Amino acid sequence: MKLRSLRESDLIAAVTKEFRSQKRELIIGIGDDAAVIRGKKKLLLLTTDLLIENVHFVASFHPPYELGRKSLNVNLSDVAAMGGRARYALLGLGLRKKTDLTWVERFFLGFKSAAQESGVELIGGDTSASKNVVISVTVIGMAEHVIPRNGARPGDLIFISGYLGDAAAGLRLLKKGFRAGTDRQADALIKAFLDPRPQLALAGVLSRRRLASAMIDTSDGLSVDLHHICEESRTGADIYLEKLPLSPEIRVVEKNPLNLALHGGEDYELLFTASSGNRAALTSLKKRFSLHCIGHITGSRTIRVIDRNGRSRRLEAKGYQHFS
Amino acid sequence: MKLRSLRESDLIAAVTKEFRSQKRELIIGIGDDAAVIRGKKKLLLLTTDLLIENVHFVASFHPPYELGRKSLNVNLSDVAAMGGRARYALLGLGLRKKTDLTWVERFFLGFKSAAQESGVELIGGDTSASKNVVISVTVIGMAEHVIPRNGARPGDLIFISGYLGDAAAGLRLLKKGFRAGTDRQADALIKAFLDPRPQLALAGVLSRRRLASAMIDTSDGLSVDLHHICEESRTGADIYLEKLPLSPEIRVVEKNPLNLALHGGEDYELLFTASSGNRAALTSLKKRFSLHCIGHITGSRTIRVIDRNGRSRRLEAKGYQHFS
Repeated sequence: MKLRSLRESDLIAAVTKEFRSQKRELIIGIGDDAAVIRGKKKLLLLTTDLLIENVHFVASFHPPYELGRKSLNVNLSDVAAMGGRARYALLGLGLRKKTDLTWVERFFLGFKSAAQESGVELIGGDTSASKNVVISVTVIGMAEHVIPRNGARPGDLIFISGYLGDAAAGLRLLKKGFRAGTDRQADALIKAFLDPRPQLALAGVLSRRRLASAMIDTSDGLSVDLHHICEESRTGADIYLEKLPLSPEIRVVEKNPLNLALHGGEDYELLFTASSGNRAALTSLKKRFSLHCIGHITGSRTIRVIDRNGRSRRLEAKGYQHFS
Repeated sequence: MKLRSLRESDLIAAVTKEFRSQKRELIIGIGDDAAVIRGKKKLLLLTTDLLIENVHFVASFHPPYELGRKSLNVNLSDVAAMGGRARYALLGLGLRKKTDLTWVERFFLGFKSAAQESGVELIGGDTSASKNVVISVTVIGMAEHVIPRNGARPGDLIFISGYLGDAAAGLRLLKKGFRAGTDRQADALIKAFLDPRPQLALAGVLSRRRLASAMIDTSDGLSVDLHHICEESRTGADIYLEKLPLSPEIRVVEKNPLNLALHGGEDYELLFTASSGNRAALTSLKKRFSLHCIGHITGSRTIRVIDRNGRSRRLEAKGYQHFS
């Protein structure tokens, strides 16, 4: 059997079984956004991500400064989605021998700018020669308590921060040959893809005030990420098409923005569920944060999309493809 | 300026400067085998390594089981060399889509066997498609105190565990077309390269009994790794050619084994310095461990090799090349 026919989730399931934990201080192991270890006073969060050239990014699209920022920010997003605060980062970098030093400097400056914005410190790493650029980032964070993927309960409201689909729309533009600087609308979408902003402040508030029952960041796209929450919480969900937040830019640029909103990845927004008792508290958060209630959790084990006429259909977890 | 003309140490130096730490709980940042953070009671050690196909390993040489073991063990060696005990691991794995599932299973079984031998738990990771196989391992360990690279003092004795050069000799055999199973001597050397054993038990004793003033694992080869200790300790060293430990196998197989002993990498043995007051304690450790005193630290800022006739020459830090 070739790997091509295996989904990442199957591979993770096989590995999880093989490596089931024996240690009591390990709270969450393989399968969530980050692993969680019980420390003396706080919880330690650990997450790692690989970014591989021509799989996760295309060097000709992605300026090194923005790539450096994104490499760290996607990991900060993982830690934030667990309710944690990132503290330290390790960076593994595989570079072509003919890489220009200016490229490396710009990459590090971008990485550093994202680190400084979020109070994270680069404490170690590894460099290597490589045919393709390979970026491996590990982030260590702390939390008082974690917001898992499996905490959603029937009746919980489903919220999403920001807009859906902008990053995927930006990627489509880049693939079509658009570059930043051509058009105001296109620029905003391209920026959403090249330089996503992790919702660290919102995640911090949700965690401190214990407003979310389950949370994930939308790296794979709404349909896949909502499936993660529902599968692990053993629930279903109803979401309403007309409630999906679409940016003014995606409405102008895309003919069928709802498809990207449902299945486009890499927005790195927060998708979370909350008990309906927290509705007022979350509504008041809308003064500070872009936040949208898009549906609710059900007991049915299926995820349905409901259109403005009340017609419903099953939402498939359609995998988001970056480049290959 | 292209990266080709830049050494990894220069790149690390540039990054270290850029990312100088502001946080007081960070004890050792970029540049040592592992980063060290002061926890509530213990020290937290973090290290990350990239293994890239055709740079660090060649898939046709390296059976997946041994590659899985080595991927983890080289990181355990880094933690041990700091005086720590590894506890958790994160694994990022980039695989070709046409990779056979059996290969992946054998890799994980190897990784797991090394994890179980050392009481380490795989707690998370990331998988991705990739053109070349990319393995990124991060290990988290604990320590009561650390053994840094910069603790060597003039007059300290220099010790090495195990034999020098065996892994490099094994790699030479593999490159020449030898494979395991052809010859007993060759097999031992090939195994030293494919499946190195990190000196975790010895490192634990040296750390608990505070016998070492500086320590590093020999991943880059004696000449480079001794330079790391001397540069960071601001010392020099005299080492004696006839004291370099050569295995019976390398003596049979290699015409000029001393060159490999001085410059061959990937032995993952422990190179450490110790105050001469610890000589008796270290001599008694020779009952349990393979341990050799190969010279002493000097105040001169140069590293000299002294032959059996008392002639000395400067030892250059000649970089070890894996595959490209």
